[in-house]
Amino acid sequence: MKAFNDLADFSNEEIAALLDLAGRLDLHPEPEALRGKVLALLFLSPSLRTLASFQAAMTRLGGGSFVISPEMSIHGIETRPGIVMDGMAAEHIREAVPVIASYGDAIGIRAFAQRRNIEHDMNEIEYTALTDLIDTPCINMESAMNHPCQNLADWKTLDDLGVPANGGKLVLSWAYHPKALPLAVPSSTLHMAAKRGMDVTVLRPGGFELPQPLMQKARAAAQASGGSVTETDDRIEAMQDAHVIYAKSWSSTKHYGDKIADEDLRSELIDWCVDDPWFDNAKEDCRFMHCLPVRRGVVVSDAVLDGPRSVVIHEARNRMLAQMAVLHQMLGGPL
Amino acid sequence: MKAFNDLADFSNEEIAALLDLAGRLDLHPEPEALRGKVLALLFLSPSLRTLASFQAAMTRLGGGSFVISPEMSIHGIETRPGIVMDGMAAEHIREAVPVIASYGDAIGIRAFAQRRNIEHDMNEIEYTALTDLIDTPCINMESAMNHPCQNLADWKTLDDLGVPANGGKLVLSWAYHPKALPLAVPSSTLHMAAKRGMDVTVLRPGGFELPQPLMQKARAAAQASGGSVTETDDRIEAMQDAHVIYAKSWSSTKHYGDKIADEDLRSELIDWCVDDPWFDNAKEDCRFMHCLPVRRGVVVSDAVLDGPRSVVIHEARNRMLAQMAVLHQMLGGPL
Amino acid sequence: MKAFNDLADFSNEEIAALLDLAGRLDLHPEPEALRGKVLALLFLSPSLRTLASFQAAMTRLGGGSFVISPEMSIHGIETRPGIVMDGMAAEHIREAVPVIASYGDAIGIRAFAQRRNIEHDMNEIEYTALTDLIDTPCINMESAMNHPCQNLADWKTLDDLGVPANGGKLVLSWAYHPKALPLAVPSSTLHMAAKRGMDVTVLRPGGFELPQPLMQKARAAAQASGGSVTETDDRIEAMQDAHVIYAKSWSSTKHYGDKIADEDLRSELIDWCVDDPWFDNAKEDCRFMHCLPVRRGVVVSDAVLDGPRSVVIHEARNRMLAQMAVLHQMLGGPL
Repeated sequence: MKAFNDLADFSNEEIAALLDLAGRLDLHPEPEALRGKVLALLFLSPSLRTLASFQAAMTRLGGGSFVISPEMSIHGIETRPGIVMDGMAAEHIREAVPVIASYGDAIGIRAFAQRRNIEHDMNEIEYTALTDLIDTPCINMESAMNHPCQNLADWKTLDDLGVPANGGKLVLSWAYHPKALPLAVPSSTLHMAAKRGMDVTVLRPGGFELPQPLMQKARAAAQASGGSVTETDDRIEAMQDAHVIYAKSWSSTKHYGDKIADEDLRSELIDWCVDDPWFDNAKEDCRFMHCLPVRRGVVVSDAVLDGPRSVVIHEARNRMLAQMAVLHQMLGGPL
Repeated sequence: MKAFNDLADFSNEEIAALLDLAGRLDLHPEPEALRGKVLALLFLSPSLRTLASFQAAMTRLGGGSFVISPEMSIHGIETRPGIVMDGMAAEHIREAVPVIASYGDAIGIRAFAQRRNIEHDMNEIEYTALTDLIDTPCINMESAMNHPCQNLADWKTLDDLGVPANGGKLVLSWAYHPKALPLAVPSSTLHMAAKRGMDVTVLRPGGFELPQPLMQKARAAAQASGGSVTETDDRIEAMQDAHVIYAKSWSSTKHYGDKIADEDLRSELIDWCVDDPWFDNAKEDCRFMHCLPVRRGVVVSDAVLDGPRSVVIHEARNRMLAQMAVLHQMLGGPL
Repeated sequence: MKAFNDLADFSNEEIAALLDLAGRLDLHPEPEALRGKVLALLFLSPSLRTLASFQAAMTRLGGGSFVISPEMSIHGIETRPGIVMDGMAAEHIREAVPVIASYGDAIGIRAFAQRRNIEHDMNEIEYTALTDLIDTPCINMESAMNHPCQNLADWKTLDDLGVPANGGKLVLSWAYHPKALPLAVPSSTLHMAAKRGMDVTVLRPGGFELPQPLMQKARAAAQASGGSVTETDDRIEAMQDAHVIYAKSWSSTKHYGDKIADEDLRSELIDWCVDDPWFDNAKEDCRFMHCLPVRRGVVVSDAVLDGPRSVVIHEARNRMLAQMAVLHQMLGGPL
């Protein structure tokens, strides 16, 4: 595997093989698989789970990693092309990325969306500008519209819990949050569930529709796998017979990049906090999923998050296992 | 070993076995013992020795570790229960701790005292609230009133130096410091020395008495081991025939949590700086111990710290060895 | 090897052996060489390449490392001798360095020049004050006037590119930069190239002459190796038939430690930005070298840096390989 940028680049069979490997590595550790191998971890955006789970994954496979993040005293990193660097930044990303990559057998890169122009972000301009600088095998640790490590972990969680692929219903629900958050998790989760063959309902208030190209991408994936994609702002309709609700806040797409207008719109929506009544007409054992971090009492009630429906810690642990499988395939450990 | 929270949880025989193992690992490295094992390190309070020595310990045993600390750009971590998270913090400790723990085979946690209410701190409310969230084997890297890794290292140092257990005299002395510091080291050092069977004298000015429950805990340990515990504010009496002075500053217990009153009281006590004359009536080779960090010219004179009495670097190195023994037992390396 | 402080401490034969080892480790990984060995990394000055490349180097050899840097919440570190520590700093370097070193089998230390007094800096007072505190094998990760890891990597790059040793011409050129930068790289690069037997021309404007003792040290090295050292402010003369231009900005030595006077002087010199016309009378395949980080459009044009002359990424990767060789020899891995 040369790159792990988007789950859409892999067939369902390849994903099944990765998940099978992840499960095997959990039961049968392989602390010799990646002896002396190095993963470079470049965080241009903050992280907790990704930071910890990738380091742990490499150690478990017998290799190691190093972390570069902007809060380190590393002179400041310039990202604009063609600029005369007479300001604060002492290093340009055009040198920093190839150098950091040259120390690793693979590199993980996190670079969130700029969230000024939605076309720009949907085209993954930022992330691609970085990966275009290098030949090193590359892992997307969250870009503008993709978070394939999260998607692979969530797919595993759905499998672990026995949620049906075909015939399973997943509600991807917008939730209130005081800040306008990126689209990477909702966009790529929608696609993941559709690709898994599930019936996916996007539940969101007006102004928070997911972009049409992303809806189309998911619909195509659903069609190929026997699933479906619908959208609604009607909570009761959406939750009917749901196996899973996957909650996540995201930016207004109607006012993308317009912080004030987004704030105005979302300020009316603080009742979009997932709570027990949401589950009234769902399947009895309907699960609550979230990629974390999650704001308690804002995105979800304490009761739901601390109750038996919540599988958020299970999801988070699966990050490590999913990434171990990706690293194992990418860095040439024997299958 | 499932938890290493307090030295009091272990018998003197168990401690002897740990120290024996620590010595053996120093002489005969076991770089295969913990192959592929991961230690999660969660620092809710700052660290240098603990941070470095745990990472080094895991590497020496063939495993690895990762560090999460609040100065990382990890969204801010909320600790208050039942709160509506509409402020700065994006993640609650109730998710963060189980997630971080899920990536490790064991987790080390550092969480200093709140120092508002002494009962609260003596009951280890903060630390226990964290460890209650997880089943992962857990190491206390300093809590409100305990620092068992420091204690085990200091016990080893006393052994290494041939300081007698029964019949050995250790003076635990308060020292001046411009800030009100936690009680974890003095409290747990008092107990360690008493448990080792030593005659311990707590030397402290009025207003800095250690809490009675902690004095009682130490007296019980001394009684079981053939030691004794006394307290005084008379330096000459305290230092008479001492084998060791263990210096440490701590908060006023009379004014616990009252920063202004504490400052008023300590401002009169800047002569509590351990200097050569303190040793006039001690054993000729009386040693100076301190857990570090230590303020030169404030807690102890340069002459004492740079002189032959000082064993502070030896103590600090023993942190690594003691922790290697704990990790070796906890993570299942063969004895 | 007990210390790697200055390339001048090694014979050309010893350097050849290190470079041979570096090349071998690149082709034939030895992930067992330093099993369970620990490198302590102490950064008193900021870093990206050094931070990443040393961590990667230890992992590739089967060991590990830990990092201590001042931006960590480690209480603040006092460096002044004999001071009463009643201010912010809670720990003195006299304890911090021996403690950190005690956790490693070797220690790397980075401590830039104070840049107040040039004699002080040329005598490596800061760096030596730190290494004098310890017996642990020590690697200079950049001190006031030395950067032997960079020098060894650059020597390897020159070899890799087939630049002749005797008869090869290297131009060490000052370049514009808005800040007054340390002398470590230019001083030690000058010496490295001379020691390699090259004809070295120092190209710099008036007021930026390298100190005479450093010029003498380089001339002595050149004499022993069949090279030469000259200096000039004439760009056309300097670049005539050059095989390599090594660009780097540095402080005015005329106004050393005088920030205002330095700024006044350099503000007239913004045309010292390496650009295509500089190469008009150089060898056709004349290379551009720089230790990084480099400011685009300030030190060097985008055209040169992105063009075929530039070998800066190759240089940076060689940092890792050169350091692997040093660590391999220092920590006792079999040759």
